[in-house]
Amino acid sequence: MKILVLGGDGYLGWPTTLHLSAAGHRVAVADNFARRGYDNELGVESLVPIEPLQSRIAVWRELTGEEITCYVGDLTDALFAHRIIDEFRPDAVVHYAEQRAAPYSMIDRAHAVYTQQNNVIGNLNLLFAIAETNPDIHLVKLGTLGAYGTPNIDIEEGWLEVEHKGRRDKVPFPMRPGSFYHLSKVHDSHNIEFACRVWNLRATDLNQGVVYGAQTAETARDERLATRFDYDAVFGTVLNRFVIQAVIGHPLTVYGAGGQTRGMIDIRDTVRCVQLACENPADRGEFRVFNQITEWMSVREMAEAVAAAFPGDVRIENLDNPRVELADHYYNVTHTKLIELGLEPHLLSDTLIESLFEVTKRYAHRVRPEALLPRVNWRRPANGA
Amino acid sequence: MKILVLGGDGYLGWPTTLHLSAAGHRVAVADNFARRGYDNELGVESLVPIEPLQSRIAVWRELTGEEITCYVGDLTDALFAHRIIDEFRPDAVVHYAEQRAAPYSMIDRAHAVYTQQNNVIGNLNLLFAIAETNPDIHLVKLGTLGAYGTPNIDIEEGWLEVEHKGRRDKVPFPMRPGSFYHLSKVHDSHNIEFACRVWNLRATDLNQGVVYGAQTAETARDERLATRFDYDAVFGTVLNRFVIQAVIGHPLTVYGAGGQTRGMIDIRDTVRCVQLACENPADRGEFRVFNQITEWMSVREMAEAVAAAFPGDVRIENLDNPRVELADHYYNVTHTKLIELGLEPHLLSDTLIESLFEVTKRYAHRVRPEALLPRVNWRRPANGA
Repeated sequence: MKILVLGGDGYLGWPTTLHLSAAGHRVAVADNFARRGYDNELGVESLVPIEPLQSRIAVWRELTGEEITCYVGDLTDALFAHRIIDEFRPDAVVHYAEQRAAPYSMIDRAHAVYTQQNNVIGNLNLLFAIAETNPDIHLVKLGTLGAYGTPNIDIEEGWLEVEHKGRRDKVPFPMRPGSFYHLSKVHDSHNIEFACRVWNLRATDLNQGVVYGAQTAETARDERLATRFDYDAVFGTVLNRFVIQAVIGHPLTVYGAGGQTRGMIDIRDTVRCVQLACENPADRGEFRVFNQITEWMSVREMAEAVAAAFPGDVRIENLDNPRVELADHYYNVTHTKLIELGLEPHLLSDTLIESLFEVTKRYAHRVRPEALLPRVNWRRPANGA
Repeated sequence: MKILVLGGDGYLGWPTTLHLSAAGHRVAVADNFARRGYDNELGVESLVPIEPLQSRIAVWRELTGEEITCYVGDLTDALFAHRIIDEFRPDAVVHYAEQRAAPYSMIDRAHAVYTQQNNVIGNLNLLFAIAETNPDIHLVKLGTLGAYGTPNIDIEEGWLEVEHKGRRDKVPFPMRPGSFYHLSKVHDSHNIEFACRVWNLRATDLNQGVVYGAQTAETARDERLATRFDYDAVFGTVLNRFVIQAVIGHPLTVYGAGGQTRGMIDIRDTVRCVQLACENPADRGEFRVFNQITEWMSVREMAEAVAAAFPGDVRIENLDNPRVELADHYYNVTHTKLIELGLEPHLLSDTLIESLFEVTKRYAHRVRPEALLPRVNWRRPANGA
């Protein structure tokens, strides 16, 4: 198949690109390098050094003979969105090209507005480009499990059968997201569901949990193929952050008592899930939702798993939770659809955590420790106007 | 109370402003005149001639001695949003300042993007301005009944009690809106619900049905106080449009067989509902939703009611429905909360329809008949990129 990966330079976009190329697909990437720009803004860098996108692509060509087409531009530019669909003529578009950090969206008004504008408008431009160019293209959109919030009922895969006053319907699963970022994904999902309904598009929304891990089979082939590995409190995902704190001898910073639970997935499963979604497209007119996780743990349990695996002393410290979320809650997430398509999950193991210690030790000198502590507070609206 | 009406120059914003002023409140309005601009773009005018905002305000002062403060500016300008809240220090903000026509949002990509950007970003700026300036301010937000779509269950007021696999929760009512405009209101509602949760704001979301009518007690006091009355297929609401078609001797254009049902409300009830919401604020942290309708009818029933009341021959013509919606569906909407606060509904009557015939006859020479026919098609994505 021909697959266009939007946001193909990012933590997950790049390994996905390689994985799809290795699986025999003809792949193109597009990126505006916003993610590298956030590093400049926040004064941090990926723990693992990364090559420029063009160099990465050259290394992959050198190793495999496979060509990856590269587009540089921004989806909020409608002409760019239209041009890449029209030129590359993909069978599937994998859409990672959104601002993806909850804390970043909560910095202040400008960051909240940027996040929703960038994500919602980019996605709208993409929907129009697909609908007008070729409505048969399958949109594989990265969403977030955090869109659901923490309801007191089981979280189903995007749709809920309800009975109310003796009548029945299947309705979009109700959403109570936890940040302006998570809200942007909820807005996207509503827009996509509508586009499937009125234009007969086909789409898969991947409501993904927190991703952990540093490598896939493909990125491990050459250090110049490494993907980014974020440790800071804004972009670092929680388990990766705990690993780094353990290695540099800092306490693992658990927000609140750590009873809040997160759905999780290994980066190797992420790239496999996206492959499965592409190779098994949604029907025309179908808005399909997969919960892209393989297990869940409370934040405290993650810290304990990292501490137990670490060969040395680790202290766990409880900080005031900067987020507004339930300290303790029911959590049960249905996630069978990707398994049915063939996903064989890598569950979190000591081996995996130990492999992360190795990666981290090698680059520990690059850590700026103050960047590990949360500076963004959910309760304090910063207008900046 | 001090009440700031955003979008105070519009079809409903202006009558609301006068109604609140007449009720003894200290009122300010803000507007960017986008609505008057859409007329220029579409080559139409309000059937009833309207004065400039500043003249309207001067007439009201002349008649009543009441002062209305006037701000000219745009909510997507964060500094403007912040300044008007900071200067006027309202107890309540009534937020009408959004692009409000479904067909306008479906013209093409640019209009879809404009609608979501304008509505979502303007509302975000407003939330931050309230949260930072005075989180005690009550936000009274105009939403739309169309946000719910047409589920096969009763539509409740914003929240739904669900039982699922033996567990219970109260969740946001699931939404399947019918246009990029309706989607923008769904996005707004999610953003507001979140702001109430994390910043302890207070908000009332008024999910309003289709409004009909040309006058309120206040606008009828002087013809220079008249509010706009739109007849075109983009901004004209369905019942008003049927009245105009009857008067100028055109067939009433029912989309499809007309089985689709709309919740409705008289403009005199709209202004009363907003007053009731302001005078009975939501609690701190509460996201309250009222379904602001008084009855519902199928589009065919509305056409028949207009035809029956018209003193002459009227033909009803069925056009292909340009919208994507169910031709026939279950529809039952709970709308008790505003009644509980004291609303005494004006139901649609021959007298009301006859009063609209009078208004329309007076200005029938201003109608551009081709503007009555739908040109925007939901099924045809126009990229324009």
